[in-house]
Amino acid sequence: MKAIVFDKNNGPHLDENYPEPSPHADQVLVAIETIGVCKTDLEILKGYMGFEGVIGHEFAGTVIQGPDEWISKRVVAEINCNCGACEMCLAGRGNHCPKRSVLGIAGVDGVMAERAAVPIANLHLLPDALTNDRAVFTEPLAAALRIGQQVDLNGANVVVLGAGRLGQLAARAIKPAAASVLLVGKHAAKLQLADQAGLDTIELDKFAPDRRADVVVDATGSPAGFELALRTVRPLGTVVLKSTFAVDGGINMAPIVIDEITITGSRCGPFAPAIEALTAGQVEVIDLISRRFDLSQGVEALTAAADAANIKVLIDVQHGAAS
Amino acid sequence: MKAIVFDKNNGPHLDENYPEPSPHADQVLVAIETIGVCKTDLEILKGYMGFEGVIGHEFAGTVIQGPDEWISKRVVAEINCNCGACEMCLAGRGNHCPKRSVLGIAGVDGVMAERAAVPIANLHLLPDALTNDRAVFTEPLAAALRIGQQVDLNGANVVVLGAGRLGQLAARAIKPAAASVLLVGKHAAKLQLADQAGLDTIELDKFAPDRRADVVVDATGSPAGFELALRTVRPLGTVVLKSTFAVDGGINMAPIVIDEITITGSRCGPFAPAIEALTAGQVEVIDLISRRFDLSQGVEALTAAADAANIKVLIDVQHGAAS
Repeated sequence: MKAIVFDKNNGPHLDENYPEPSPHADQVLVAIETIGVCKTDLEILKGYMGFEGVIGHEFAGTVIQGPDEWISKRVVAEINCNCGACEMCLAGRGNHCPKRSVLGIAGVDGVMAERAAVPIANLHLLPDALTNDRAVFTEPLAAALRIGQQVDLNGANVVVLGAGRLGQLAARAIKPAAASVLLVGKHAAKLQLADQAGLDTIELDKFAPDRRADVVVDATGSPAGFELALRTVRPLGTVVLKSTFAVDGGINMAPIVIDEITITGSRCGPFAPAIEALTAGQVEVIDLISRRFDLSQGVEALTAAADAANIKVLIDVQHGAAS
Repeated sequence: MKAIVFDKNNGPHLDENYPEPSPHADQVLVAIETIGVCKTDLEILKGYMGFEGVIGHEFAGTVIQGPDEWISKRVVAEINCNCGACEMCLAGRGNHCPKRSVLGIAGVDGVMAERAAVPIANLHLLPDALTNDRAVFTEPLAAALRIGQQVDLNGANVVVLGAGRLGQLAARAIKPAAASVLLVGKHAAKLQLADQAGLDTIELDKFAPDRRADVVVDATGSPAGFELALRTVRPLGTVVLKSTFAVDGGINMAPIVIDEITITGSRCGPFAPAIEALTAGQVEVIDLISRRFDLSQGVEALTAAADAANIKVLIDVQHGAAS
């Protein structure tokens, strides 16, 4: 089958003859229909997690092999494949299972392919009313909704730093609960989309941090963003770290202690409320789709996703009648 | 009067003729009797906060001038002097008042002197049963009790990194609520004191972090301590930062996001429960007193406090009948 594969020697490439997945008894085979490109996919191309194999973890598709009750069902799937038996899993913290594999990120092939094997335990059924183009945002929207599970957003004045894929979703997901949300970004065109979606926005150049935000979400993916977050949050406030980065130039931790700031790392979130919000149209996502490509052009899709001018890049998989 | 004064030109020194404090209407004059030397005092000698003046903020003493109801009362005092009128003060977050001065740390003379002017709003009456030697631990014990206000310690497995002044108090303060407390330190003699106080201890060399602690308190004051804390805390756990430092060599923030770790800065705490715990003997502190000096030897006391072999250094102030 066709798949977009990354390995260290060849980089990302289209493999037209990648081996078909062989689902285990606890997995289904999914015909992948729509794929979203994520920042993490781009990080993997730089060596993140040392992953090699089929990349990609955001998808919508249809089950074509597995238990009868799942056949022909449209689904999305959580990305953490947990052991189910360890201390963390038994404590209900399966997303942090130390033995986990993660679709297209760690230890197991992902979904940027015609077909993928996915654990049944990870599946979520898609309502008929939820199109694939919206459903493919389930995973990143869940990650945005995770913030509200970790931090009390009710009545909070929130600043979201970064108007890319995750920042846009975070701002939109946070808005219903918060007293205010301000999205800070570099690109006027991206901020305009947020404006049109009813968000308050400001360009980074014009943003004057004043240490008054109750909650700051750092979705910039850069050390500069983290430092800006520390200058934006109020004493006793919370900085939510959404993107992974390394601080090279040193960092002064004293303000964190003096101002008693809380910094919370935030990763994967709950799929069910994300599907609900997308189905009900509570969080609009279609405007975030900047470009789309066919699976054969997957490498071009990755390049487009790395272009800061684009927000979300989708990949479509065409399944002929005979496939 | 005698005072231990720091300024950039002369460093820390005994001033035998420092001007007498002139209390405002909302202040009392306190005859200082016992003083504790704190890490923050030592940081000020290195330029921290750019402070110049009488250093010191931990004391027990007797009110000798002010409203009748306070005269001759033994007291301790909170160190943050707040405006009482700003957004933070009105929200009950006076310790974070942006206009605050802090005794012996920022904008106002401290207590390493024969007498000090202290805001009435900051005073706490000492029970007769509470000796000065114990009462002088009120401020640092309050800072240790602050941890339990910020983080749920009930049933938690806690590791405290650093067996100095703050680490010892933090471990002792946390023990009643926690399922377990392990104090990690460098100096066998300090750990022995903790052992004798009923704490579990381990030498740093022998400590093998396993990412299983629910809560890690970093009281090391060093970047190495923070990195060790990140390797000690479990996914979804909390690192409490108790000491101010700058990371010079860079730091990888990715594990904080991937493991969804929370980092909470922690500074000043509640005096009333600290006085209660000291009075009831719930937290033993007398064994932590390593050395004591007369006020005239205040500079020697600072040197002794900087010696890692010592835990708490006290300064006694002798008041003649005529003073």
